[in-house]
Amino acid sequence: MLTISSRGIEMPASPIRKLVPFAETAKKKGIKVYHLNIGQPDVETPAALFDAVKNSHIKVLEYSHSAGNESYRRKLVQYYKKVGIDVSYDQIMITTGGSEAIMFGFFACLNPGDEVIIPEPFYANYNGFACAAGVKVVPITSYIETGFALPAIEEFEKVITSKTKAIIICSPNNPTGYLYSKDEMNKLRDLCVKYDLYFFSDEAYREFCYDGEYVSAMHVDGLDKHLILIDTISKRYSACGARLGALVTKNKEVYDACMKFAQARLSPPGLAQIMGEAAIDLPADYFDGTKAEYLSRRDLLVKRLNEMPGVVCPKPGGAFYVIAKLPIDDSDKFCQWILESFTYKDQTVMLAPATGFYGTPGLGKHEVRIAYVLNKESLDLAMDCLAEALKVYPGRTN
Amino acid sequence: MLTISSRGIEMPASPIRKLVPFAETAKKKGIKVYHLNIGQPDVETPAALFDAVKNSHIKVLEYSHSAGNESYRRKLVQYYKKVGIDVSYDQIMITTGGSEAIMFGFFACLNPGDEVIIPEPFYANYNGFACAAGVKVVPITSYIETGFALPAIEEFEKVITSKTKAIIICSPNNPTGYLYSKDEMNKLRDLCVKYDLYFFSDEAYREFCYDGEYVSAMHVDGLDKHLILIDTISKRYSACGARLGALVTKNKEVYDACMKFAQARLSPPGLAQIMGEAAIDLPADYFDGTKAEYLSRRDLLVKRLNEMPGVVCPKPGGAFYVIAKLPIDDSDKFCQWILESFTYKDQTVMLAPATGFYGTPGLGKHEVRIAYVLNKESLDLAMDCLAEALKVYPGRTN
Repeated sequence: MLTISSRGIEMPASPIRKLVPFAETAKKKGIKVYHLNIGQPDVETPAALFDAVKNSHIKVLEYSHSAGNESYRRKLVQYYKKVGIDVSYDQIMITTGGSEAIMFGFFACLNPGDEVIIPEPFYANYNGFACAAGVKVVPITSYIETGFALPAIEEFEKVITSKTKAIIICSPNNPTGYLYSKDEMNKLRDLCVKYDLYFFSDEAYREFCYDGEYVSAMHVDGLDKHLILIDTISKRYSACGARLGALVTKNKEVYDACMKFAQARLSPPGLAQIMGEAAIDLPADYFDGTKAEYLSRRDLLVKRLNEMPGVVCPKPGGAFYVIAKLPIDDSDKFCQWILESFTYKDQTVMLAPATGFYGTPGLGKHEVRIAYVLNKESLDLAMDCLAEALKVYPGRTN
Repeated sequence: MLTISSRGIEMPASPIRKLVPFAETAKKKGIKVYHLNIGQPDVETPAALFDAVKNSHIKVLEYSHSAGNESYRRKLVQYYKKVGIDVSYDQIMITTGGSEAIMFGFFACLNPGDEVIIPEPFYANYNGFACAAGVKVVPITSYIETGFALPAIEEFEKVITSKTKAIIICSPNNPTGYLYSKDEMNKLRDLCVKYDLYFFSDEAYREFCYDGEYVSAMHVDGLDKHLILIDTISKRYSACGARLGALVTKNKEVYDACMKFAQARLSPPGLAQIMGEAAIDLPADYFDGTKAEYLSRRDLLVKRLNEMPGVVCPKPGGAFYVIAKLPIDDSDKFCQWILESFTYKDQTVMLAPATGFYGTPGLGKHEVRIAYVLNKESLDLAMDCLAEALKVYPGRTN
């Protein structure tokens, strides 16, 4: 009998997208649904990125270099310099989104059965990439009470085994918005050096830091051999659909091994690389506007949430997500119920149950992830819905 | 100590690209190098594909559906109908090149340690995808004497074990150009049904059939549950750099399992999907021109090769590659030597040693793959170089 592979069966469905059918049903009933479940911003992609594609005069859209166009990689060196990261173009590999960069890193550094430690809650698709690569995710819990700060290093040390090969950090964090401090990054560096671990640093939200200092793992001394930086233009320039990312490492063996996986898939997307190259030439103040917009959204959202009785939401330092604790019995049930059985002025809101962002079963049952990717007017209306919903939800707990 | 993973070490470098440094050195010396080593055509990408992107008025380049834009998938249904393939849009998954379609298929259908049978010589990157997925490639040799026809089915049966889960066929074939007949496809169907094997059919070169009838695996009765069709616009519209492919299957379990891997990486490239959709509207006679061009190139190349003393080159029925047997001691040495130590009128030619296309060690030592991706004038000049090179190559064998 034809069978699906074990990893095909074990592969988790996306927790961000699994409630989509309920949202679609609601929309068919004429209900307006605010999508705060997914990190798809409403911010316009800069016109200059499209213009660059329109003004390119390509006769044959050829395979690029498997590491991406050299011209783009050389321009990225300038971009990185501006954010205090000193790398050369041959330490940068252009990938199909940050997703592919993670896959290449896993393939090159981890054997099937190896373990990677990730503070939870974490970006849910790490589970998917780990499943595809046969790698085991070992979660270390961070807590809403501390604003999802880095757990004590002793917690990491407790779970390190001979199979542990890497840790993954995302800062500013998806889904918590937490911004790791220099001190926390240094502690993680010491850990990686002590136990010979690779350090995967996912910095997709680098430009969106509101409070405190932004610290790239590339700013941390003594981490070079360990560090695999994961990057993407998706959020930075609101160009999620371009599918353009990068893997950056100063470890030449890792780079060379990743390069073989890159060669097998031939090249990253061509037109997206033109967009990426144009993005480097955006005016220096480009991020001021988007950052100010997200900051004001964050402040609105956190204020609205904490005003609701029984709701707790720490104010995150970066990215465009919050994890909020709600007075509910079960976030999966609640997020389905609010789409299926609730409306307020013919509107409702789609949230992501936090359970999908935890590796430890049972955690996240009272939490949801909310992405502040819609304008303030929509956010306000969405929070009106949530406030009303919490009043009448049958599974309310206090 | 930080170590590269076993698969990172075992992962093969691309046999098509490994001689690139020698070509670059030759070019720096002012030598003109004809690139017949790689399937990168000089045929122009249809302007209509770029125009569609230029005329799209996108404000936010959002993630698409993980299976690709529904509008594109619905249009692909029409394309497939024209080539006699009856599928619905929800049996089509848009991928980042054919490469990603193969990866998804491997992940969903094969466990690490499982075996996949492939007639050799075969597309070298199958090795890479198999290595990434932990799958073992079991080659079955086809021979230049029969024009690389399908080996006897008994040869397949000899190597089938409890670990064998799939076969892969590419027709028209890369690297041999062989076009599988209806009878051969039926035999493979019977084999897959008898032994419960998945049938991966890579049809990247569908439009380029010159002699004999084109047979898609989708034309074969009774294969639906077994079949995973791998497709791409790379060669069809000379849009290799777009990175746009598709996985097509009528096996819903396989589709759903692949979908989970597709969701983890979020979506295929956005602008490329606009190109792909525009391609469906190209005039009905679009392929006549490119096909006629490749046909005349094939005829020229095969004639020139067979005129060279000691050279044997079967006339392939499709794609744009030939495997030629040369009177040489070692194709790896020869392909390096012709770049490093030979010129004719300040020109030379880059070929791909066939060794990289065989899974059985030692095979392909007297063969090279030649891609007829350059215009006839260039092909003629490249063949002048090859003819002269064979006269003076120190390792000539007869």
